[in-house]
Amino acid sequence: MYAISLDLGGTHIGCAIVRDRDVLAHTSIPANARAGLAPLLPHLHSTIDALLTEAGITAADCAGIAIGYPGIVDFRTGNILSTHKKYADAIHLDLAGWALENFALPIRMENDARMALLGEHFAGAAQGHDNVIMMTLGTGIGSGAMIHGHLLRGAHAQAGNLGGHLPVDFHGRHCTCGNIGCAEAEASGWALPLVARDWPGFSRSTLAGLPHISFKQLFDHAAHGDQVALAVQQHCLEVWASNAVANVHAYDPDIVVIGGGVVESAHLIIPFIQHHVDEHVWIGGFRPKILPAKLGNLAGLIGAVPLLSEEIAAAIL
Amino acid sequence: MYAISLDLGGTHIGCAIVRDRDVLAHTSIPANARAGLAPLLPHLHSTIDALLTEAGITAADCAGIAIGYPGIVDFRTGNILSTHKKYADAIHLDLAGWALENFALPIRMENDARMALLGEHFAGAAQGHDNVIMMTLGTGIGSGAMIHGHLLRGAHAQAGNLGGHLPVDFHGRHCTCGNIGCAEAEASGWALPLVARDWPGFSRSTLAGLPHISFKQLFDHAAHGDQVALAVQQHCLEVWASNAVANVHAYDPDIVVIGGGVVESAHLIIPFIQHHVDEHVWIGGFRPKILPAKLGNLAGLIGAVPLLSEEIAAAIL
Repeated sequence: MYAISLDLGGTHIGCAIVRDRDVLAHTSIPANARAGLAPLLPHLHSTIDALLTEAGITAADCAGIAIGYPGIVDFRTGNILSTHKKYADAIHLDLAGWALENFALPIRMENDARMALLGEHFAGAAQGHDNVIMMTLGTGIGSGAMIHGHLLRGAHAQAGNLGGHLPVDFHGRHCTCGNIGCAEAEASGWALPLVARDWPGFSRSTLAGLPHISFKQLFDHAAHGDQVALAVQQHCLEVWASNAVANVHAYDPDIVVIGGGVVESAHLIIPFIQHHVDEHVWIGGFRPKILPAKLGNLAGLIGAVPLLSEEIAAAIL
Repeated sequence: MYAISLDLGGTHIGCAIVRDRDVLAHTSIPANARAGLAPLLPHLHSTIDALLTEAGITAADCAGIAIGYPGIVDFRTGNILSTHKKYADAIHLDLAGWALENFALPIRMENDARMALLGEHFAGAAQGHDNVIMMTLGTGIGSGAMIHGHLLRGAHAQAGNLGGHLPVDFHGRHCTCGNIGCAEAEASGWALPLVARDWPGFSRSTLAGLPHISFKQLFDHAAHGDQVALAVQQHCLEVWASNAVANVHAYDPDIVVIGGGVVESAHLIIPFIQHHVDEHVWIGGFRPKILPAKLGNLAGLIGAVPLLSEEIAAAIL
């Protein structure tokens, strides 16, 4: 099956033509999620046309257009339920009409973390496993859950997507989601600078001179022996590990796939989380394997064929 | 449908004859979960015989025997996967053989918290709702989750059952489950005396004179103005409320049913949790109703007919 695949990210939109597990052509175009999707549609149209040409096929060869959206989406209806300020105008756009008019193709939209899980299940780290959690440690913490081969979605399409919004500290930091002490509020890309600046001794840390603190910089400074960086790194590892146990307790998976930019430091993160999970999940319960994601930014794009192939009537979770 | 129903509790075993939503006859017999189930089987046999007589039916009128078990059970196979030291000998007992030989009936076994959820869904607080979490606040914190009318079970039969073992404090108390800072370790019947005794000023509290501290006593002493009791009560309410948000984020329900002994103080607990959930669940997401359980100790027993009616092949979660 051929498909057109779009992945709406905060600063870029990934675009691809896929054939089953293969990416035939792909690119990404700059985007500003807060400025909305409508102004980008002409550019998306021409980009898709160019990629189709590069792949040597036409839209008529494709089964449809799969769209990964950074918010809560009901894929059965295509309705966006919650935008978190990213491409908020998409709620009112007739994307199905746009796709039909320009490409004579149906669309399906799904949450971007679920798309990444579908991709890793179809062609990546989760291949061969039907009980999977994927956690994406990035600017936020995205998550998806698959049980007995079915994506978990729930009554209001958000089940499995809020794994980063299980609390690790009920007296902790306020999260952008409205909750208190979520894993995301304690150890995500947006929270890291806040956590670091509040750390005792920060002003004497080598981190203090940085205009912005990323996980890459945190790990680098920790590797060079900065004591605050080491302590904040330990804090983040403990938050992620506790959150992994929470997700294992919630969804009972065979494996947990960790994605996002921090996977570059998989040697640091994966063994720590694996050890914590082995030590602390339910006594006598199954110990899931913790695995790094394999497909990077392509995961969501490679989720297109499984999404377009899914029987909506069978999507009972 | 008639059924025989057993609910294996820590200190008692509930026994009933049910017809659909009605309990025709019931009693409970004293038990010691740590001493095992085998010594109790003759007494259970005679008790069931007496209840059948009281209900005016025979075993042949019944569809089967439903058993609620306080541990992790795979209902598809009847295998007990994890006992938590309660009726641990049941792993090696041939209960199916016992039921067939003595009553010529099949058995089905399921986790006791899932049985309570089935009961409340069939005939109690969750009637008419197909997306439900039930939390039982007792000696421990039991839980079950239902999604689109299906009990959530997961790959190793523990999904939905460990809702009380989602952390609220990743640097908190060690839980009997092996994890750190679970809601159960911070605010359950077994944890309460430990939490209270560690509270600053405990020695001057009216709680200090009690041989054992129960939630009933905690709430009584708080109502009489004891400052430590008030503070510990507030701590427990905050733990339960944070844990409710965690479970809502995990399972995306329409309603959350709160059961267990503390339901006697529903006027105190339900509005607190409802307010916290309204304030802190995912911005723009659905606000589930928080409801007290209706069936008390009968909930698990009333779960018998739904359990025995379930098509195992359709139990895909």
